[in-house]
Amino acid sequence: MFERYRRHSSELIAKARGDLPADLLLRGLHLFVPTTKEWIMTDVAIADGVVIGWGERDAIEVLDLDGAWATPSFIDAHMHIESTKLWIPDFVAAVLPWGTTAIANDPHEMANVLGLEGVIEMIKAARGLPFTFGFSASSCVPASRYESPGATFDLDDIRSVLADPNGIGLAEVMNFPGVIAGDPELLNKIAAAGSLRVDGHAPGLIGPPLDAYLCAGIESDHEMLSYAEVTEKRRKGMWVFLRHGSASQNLATLARTVTELGTSRVALCSDDREPDLIVSRGHINHCIEIAREAGITLEDALVMATVNAAEYHGFRHLGMVAPGYQADLNIYHSMEHLVPDMVLQRGVVVARQGSLITPIERTPPSERLRNTVHLKEALTARSFVTSVQPGQTVRVIVVVEHSLMTKSLVTTLDQDDATLNQITVIERHLATGRLGHGYLQGFGLVHGAIASTVAHDAHNLMVVGANSEQGRNDMATAANHVAAIGGGQAVCLNGEILAAVPLPIAGLMNDVPATTLGPQVAFAQEMVRTALGSRLEAPFMTLSFLGLSVIPSLKLTDQGLIDVERFEVTPLVIT
Amino acid sequence: MFERYRRHSSELIAKARGDLPADLLLRGLHLFVPTTKEWIMTDVAIADGVVIGWGERDAIEVLDLDGAWATPSFIDAHMHIESTKLWIPDFVAAVLPWGTTAIANDPHEMANVLGLEGVIEMIKAARGLPFTFGFSASSCVPASRYESPGATFDLDDIRSVLADPNGIGLAEVMNFPGVIAGDPELLNKIAAAGSLRVDGHAPGLIGPPLDAYLCAGIESDHEMLSYAEVTEKRRKGMWVFLRHGSASQNLATLARTVTELGTSRVALCSDDREPDLIVSRGHINHCIEIAREAGITLEDALVMATVNAAEYHGFRHLGMVAPGYQADLNIYHSMEHLVPDMVLQRGVVVARQGSLITPIERTPPSERLRNTVHLKEALTARSFVTSVQPGQTVRVIVVVEHSLMTKSLVTTLDQDDATLNQITVIERHLATGRLGHGYLQGFGLVHGAIASTVAHDAHNLMVVGANSEQGRNDMATAANHVAAIGGGQAVCLNGEILAAVPLPIAGLMNDVPATTLGPQVAFAQEMVRTALGSRLEAPFMTLSFLGLSVIPSLKLTDQGLIDVERFEVTPLVIT
Repeated sequence: MFERYRRHSSELIAKARGDLPADLLLRGLHLFVPTTKEWIMTDVAIADGVVIGWGERDAIEVLDLDGAWATPSFIDAHMHIESTKLWIPDFVAAVLPWGTTAIANDPHEMANVLGLEGVIEMIKAARGLPFTFGFSASSCVPASRYESPGATFDLDDIRSVLADPNGIGLAEVMNFPGVIAGDPELLNKIAAAGSLRVDGHAPGLIGPPLDAYLCAGIESDHEMLSYAEVTEKRRKGMWVFLRHGSASQNLATLARTVTELGTSRVALCSDDREPDLIVSRGHINHCIEIAREAGITLEDALVMATVNAAEYHGFRHLGMVAPGYQADLNIYHSMEHLVPDMVLQRGVVVARQGSLITPIERTPPSERLRNTVHLKEALTARSFVTSVQPGQTVRVIVVVEHSLMTKSLVTTLDQDDATLNQITVIERHLATGRLGHGYLQGFGLVHGAIASTVAHDAHNLMVVGANSEQGRNDMATAANHVAAIGGGQAVCLNGEILAAVPLPIAGLMNDVPATTLGPQVAFAQEMVRTALGSRLEAPFMTLSFLGLSVIPSLKLTDQGLIDVERFEVTPLVIT
Repeated sequence: MFERYRRHSSELIAKARGDLPADLLLRGLHLFVPTTKEWIMTDVAIADGVVIGWGERDAIEVLDLDGAWATPSFIDAHMHIESTKLWIPDFVAAVLPWGTTAIANDPHEMANVLGLEGVIEMIKAARGLPFTFGFSASSCVPASRYESPGATFDLDDIRSVLADPNGIGLAEVMNFPGVIAGDPELLNKIAAAGSLRVDGHAPGLIGPPLDAYLCAGIESDHEMLSYAEVTEKRRKGMWVFLRHGSASQNLATLARTVTELGTSRVALCSDDREPDLIVSRGHINHCIEIAREAGITLEDALVMATVNAAEYHGFRHLGMVAPGYQADLNIYHSMEHLVPDMVLQRGVVVARQGSLITPIERTPPSERLRNTVHLKEALTARSFVTSVQPGQTVRVIVVVEHSLMTKSLVTTLDQDDATLNQITVIERHLATGRLGHGYLQGFGLVHGAIASTVAHDAHNLMVVGANSEQGRNDMATAANHVAAIGGGQAVCLNGEILAAVPLPIAGLMNDVPATTLGPQVAFAQEMVRTALGSRLEAPFMTLSFLGLSVIPSLKLTDQGLIDVERFEVTPLVIT
């Protein structure tokens, strides 16, 4: 704990003053200094994983770097590891070579599937890895009473996470209407944060409702839809995290807030990032590249990616390459393409030229995280037959691409209307056999079906198929296959599984390298487009939010269709 | 405590969202926003002492401000209240009208006189006042083993202060050689700070010794002598507090660090400020004025004086005029002269046009803080006769004006050499009767004598007089007078007390208004110049540091002459 406050032993102090040799001297760096936004020429001495000083020192090992560029390693101010589908050690192995050595993690999806037990397993798995983890306590599990997650996360669970040495605060308080209404349960969760941080999540919130949200103690947000909104939030003292993930991206559109109003209380985050994107473009380095393309200077982007994120989350030992700080730094031969020649974590070279060179102990996850898909019975085409008769009027969910929102359409159903897809959510945690049926416009499956256990926030088994007898057959096959592999994603056509992404850990993650999982994810998405005919760019991503009952307007859970504006279950058939 | 984290009640949240009226609406402000360095036009709504929102609201009371300028109230990042000579409520009454509503206070002088008991009395006296106090725990009491304070401040005393709700960290660790050497006692004190801050105090420290100091966990400094030094300290991640006090001033000379490298991790402080300066020029407002004269923009100066100081010290409820923040703000009709038309603290107008309009409860200090001057016997001219014979060679302390440093001179003493003054330090806490004698060059008393119980750090009774029989008579009269009034300062000529500043509280402070004490202090200094012939600008201030045994090169304590470089007692007479 002391190292977080940069308080080191008398032996390290002796090394710092030069009475004992350093372990390593990095000679001749163009080092970026976030506090002054300068690049300075210096040597950096390291001992026991800590930067002990600048300038020439006696050292056991010397690396001549001939004026290479160096920055503090990067920090993700807000993310959900589960969205990478990678188990903790595989996640670390995937992002270290890109120069990320610390994250603020909200294990929100795990909390929905396995509750505190699952979250504790993640915290345990994070220990001992060459990486700094902050865990925030998920604040809104379940997302609403219309979802049926595998577990809930109550005040005691939150307190347990906050009491952990790596606890950093209360995670994104998504139920902002509840906070604004003064819901005592939410205020108690906020109070539990003590001296730690309270993250917000309030897209579009401005004016007096925002004022109320702030008066409740919310300190940050990463959901800003417009320049006016981010400006108001910053002026009112909020920390804002500009995001570039796989699903949601606001960094490029909001870049102006940095070019015009500076970097004070601004950091970068990825929120939700798929493994194929991490393999191809990386992590926070990619956010920095996006920022630069949007007109933000490299220096401002680096400040957001390092010292600012560290400051907000209380990582007082990170974000700088200065005496007393943990020796996490990235070394580049050019700042044009942010693939580090070298990444040091706690003074150890962990990656070179984009490749991991340090062994990451890949202890298998606890068996208790597996076998989380429980169906009452095997599914058949009949399981997907709805009660709707041709000619009846139904509510249809209309997909809005690149958005978590949907629209609602009322239409008369023809016999196996080919312009629509069927969608079904199957409760998969307690094997209740509960199913919710609906119809989908704009998903665009011409034939076949897909199934997934990645389905925010309850992560039940979601299936979409062509609106035909064969489609329903494929829905059953896809769903049964996903259940058979213990969770994951599957693409089925004419009874054949074209692609599958096994996610046996809580139905969300797999303990395989990103280089294995990334292509699987990319291939499955590709099959949906090429073989099943959907024109969606990321059909599984789109599917995964069709069950999120707190984002407008019409969603489907195992409890049925949810009218989010009226916040009630609404019948499929309009009589 | 929750208010520090801006977490408020459901009732306040209801007011914020507009369902209940605000207490007060400030209509039409040009409000400064530190996070974006903008001035924006807005209304500010306040309830229960908290800013609940911006924009038009229903309010019980409305103040039309017609576009007046408003800033968050000011915060002093580091000071010693004792240096103002004002007891706590009188200090608050003196600085509130200038727009200061919060300070980080190091009760270092009180700790030297009365230890934890005295400090606790100060913390108690601070409670309930319309002001925010952070108390840091004094780290170096006594300053050295060559001083004889009334009390020491050990690890348990430090822990007691840190455990107080208003404890903010470990105060200026002046013994930087000890820290750099890895002194375990000092490292234990640093460790005791836990998650709180550790302030530094290391004038001129650069290079590997600075690296070692930083590796021990030191986070800030306010003692920088040069631009190169402040640049190195900032690049290495240190917070720097630019200072403009009565004795030491580095803000103007170091202003370039802000104009060239920005405001990141920079705040303002007054450190030691005399009551007459507070009466005539104010407090942090004066630092802002000095900063502007030195070329720093108003906006940068305001950021340092508000949000930056708040951020460093964990005053998460201060530094902004935004929803959820404590309603501390200053209102001006012009930003040319920073005398606020109105100062609001917790939403209450406490001052108008530079005058306090709120009652400050002036509860008298505990009697235990009085009667701290204990002499073994009344002093006579004979008490000041040294053992030195005419013709002997002696070490002489040479005064360096505007500096805490002295030089050392070796000279042969004539009979009552008029170019020298005599100086004597009398132990005054335990009535041991221990005296230290020396000679002084450059103090410039032509005749008469002065005495003071304000004498860093041990605050024994220091007396300076003309080197003559009459001078020694006046030394006795001045010293006895100071003892008779229970501590303070006195000016004596030919047996007559020309001026006296009673400081009956620990021999350091008085519970009278600044408007009473300020003129007394100014008059006493003036008498030393006009009646006693000294050319020093601030003779009492200069005197008060001649006993500080940790600042080079030759000092005098009750234990004798101290050679600070060699850090040993050195004889007056060279044989």
